[in-house]
Amino acid sequence: MSGGAPVAISLPPDLETPCLVIDLDVVEANAARMAAAMAARGIALRPHAKTHKSVRLAQLQLAAGAIGVTVGTLGEAEVMAAGGIEDVFIAYPLWAAGPRAERLRALLGRPGLRLSVGVDSADGALQLARAAGPQSSLRVLVEVDPGNGRTGVAPARAAEVATAAQAAGLDVEGAFTHGGHAYAGLERVGAAAADEIAALSVAADALRAVGIEPRVLSAGSSPTARAAAAAPVTEMRPGTYLLGDRQQVALGASPPEGVALAVAATVVSTAVDGQVVIDAGAKSLTKDLPAYLAGYGWLPAYPAGTIERVSDYHGVVAFPAGTPRPALGEVVAVVPNHACPVIDLYDSFVATRSGMAVGRWPVDARGRSG
Amino acid sequence: MSGGAPVAISLPPDLETPCLVIDLDVVEANAARMAAAMAARGIALRPHAKTHKSVRLAQLQLAAGAIGVTVGTLGEAEVMAAGGIEDVFIAYPLWAAGPRAERLRALLGRPGLRLSVGVDSADGALQLARAAGPQSSLRVLVEVDPGNGRTGVAPARAAEVATAAQAAGLDVEGAFTHGGHAYAGLERVGAAAADEIAALSVAADALRAVGIEPRVLSAGSSPTARAAAAAPVTEMRPGTYLLGDRQQVALGASPPEGVALAVAATVVSTAVDGQVVIDAGAKSLTKDLPAYLAGYGWLPAYPAGTIERVSDYHGVVAFPAGTPRPALGEVVAVVPNHACPVIDLYDSFVATRSGMAVGRWPVDARGRSG
Repeated sequence: MSGGAPVAISLPPDLETPCLVIDLDVVEANAARMAAAMAARGIALRPHAKTHKSVRLAQLQLAAGAIGVTVGTLGEAEVMAAGGIEDVFIAYPLWAAGPRAERLRALLGRPGLRLSVGVDSADGALQLARAAGPQSSLRVLVEVDPGNGRTGVAPARAAEVATAAQAAGLDVEGAFTHGGHAYAGLERVGAAAADEIAALSVAADALRAVGIEPRVLSAGSSPTARAAAAAPVTEMRPGTYLLGDRQQVALGASPPEGVALAVAATVVSTAVDGQVVIDAGAKSLTKDLPAYLAGYGWLPAYPAGTIERVSDYHGVVAFPAGTPRPALGEVVAVVPNHACPVIDLYDSFVATRSGMAVGRWPVDARGRSG
Repeated sequence: MSGGAPVAISLPPDLETPCLVIDLDVVEANAARMAAAMAARGIALRPHAKTHKSVRLAQLQLAAGAIGVTVGTLGEAEVMAAGGIEDVFIAYPLWAAGPRAERLRALLGRPGLRLSVGVDSADGALQLARAAGPQSSLRVLVEVDPGNGRTGVAPARAAEVATAAQAAGLDVEGAFTHGGHAYAGLERVGAAAADEIAALSVAADALRAVGIEPRVLSAGSSPTARAAAAAPVTEMRPGTYLLGDRQQVALGASPPEGVALAVAATVVSTAVDGQVVIDAGAKSLTKDLPAYLAGYGWLPAYPAGTIERVSDYHGVVAFPAGTPRPALGEVVAVVPNHACPVIDLYDSFVATRSGMAVGRWPVDARGRSG
């Protein structure tokens, strides 16, 4: 799967830079490949929509075989539900107090929507139950930590949260993990996937020991998606696989030709020797920089260049002497390091096929971080 | 000016987190302090609006004595002009080709607007002149590099760009610098300010040598604003001073009590030992992390905490054993490292006075990065 640098998607002409460009042909191929991989293993696919925040891309994933979508915030859930998506899992330990409780209750009242929510504490379960109201039987999944060290209880303690949730009137569907520690580097991906399987096995046993039979054991990250797709896991929640990015290629999770997105940028200055400056900076590319990548993005057409610095509206691309570099005024494609926070900077993207623009699609849930 | 950690602004009750909160009392004090400092030195103040992207905050700066605003993109100029701001300088080497040329022409045709634009190449000047049209006499300022190494020609070469611009029919107002190398650390600020003064002196002489008398010599960054406010500089363009942030305090450019903004976040998980997790992550705080700061933001109420990791919707705040930490469900104020890219993530902010919400103000130019 791995090897090599990302391959550029073709940019259509007459772009107003900086802008986001997404190749729907590549997207469809990515959607089909992941769906086939999960189908072959008998695992349900519930892609994480925080990557693209687009109702239409979520619908494309459903059409390719996904059973529903995953989101990270109540705001994303509201946007997806309003867009007609009928099965949404908020894979986050939602703290449902204050105005957020009212929003959750409103969403639960939406006809035809099947909603489930993450929980990793007894207090959080109580808040969810209060917010949902006594008749709701809100579905929850207990988050367990596979070694990522972020959220989620230790797998053996899943029953504590589950019994508290059940006592509060919630419907405990099962447990979920996020193998985010895979992002530490390619050499960590296999172990992180194994950690997810092990954590969900322990959690499932813990739930059964208190009389709760888990219906869903959900794992997920794009790097671990294939390796973690094994019993007792029943569901997978990869996100970035749909669009790819420089990080996914480096982690072996996307083939070099699986990168479906680019930020188009114009060279605006060549005044300082040894570099060109593009009009995509921190507000267009973010400062996301994993330790195993060099520079704030990748220029497939000019592989000698390194985006060494970004300020708000400037990207400084350094070139060794004598290497090919773009001319002043030239529009270049930049593959971002990490798709998710980059997409959240744009209200819309240019959808393309074979290098031609076919539409402008909204990033429906842009900025819906809560 | 420096010393100590940022002081928290007070959060109003019932916030829906994550959200941006800005204290107007502190903003007004910051605006008045900078205006007084520049007035005392006889330097015109033209604040950079890319920090706040808010028409109302720009109007507040004008009311405090600013002569106009600076922006970084054509989109920001359009928003400020539409909001009634009548004097706008795009401090950026705008490449005015394609659709951007039409937008520039439309903006130049706006009655009552005084617009000037940066330029750092003869080709760029030619593009600007073509876009503006033969009758426009578009005002330009030549960008010269004070040692920041980003954009701008070497000061002694300012005349090359200026004569090309003049030959193309543009009105050369003068020159400008950005002392961005001050951001390398407190020990660099004084030298960067001196570099700005020196670069503009050389540029002014170079312009005079070809018969162009500079009317404007514009320097600017918040850290260098005071030290660079000396002859031959005529104008200063600080931005972040209005809101402050953790970086400005560390650089001595904001007093600890001059921080006017915070991201409000809720503790959503305490499941993993030694840390709490807040609902403000990379999509709410960015990954901006200067080398001289620890963590992706600062919790004034819990100074022992370090935001060690951020993922899209999670901020992992580590605490040494035995130190006070916020409880599950508690709402905390986080002072961001760098205000500018953070504000660009929010469609609006909660405006407060004395810890009470007084309105919801739009971030008018959010996402207008081109």
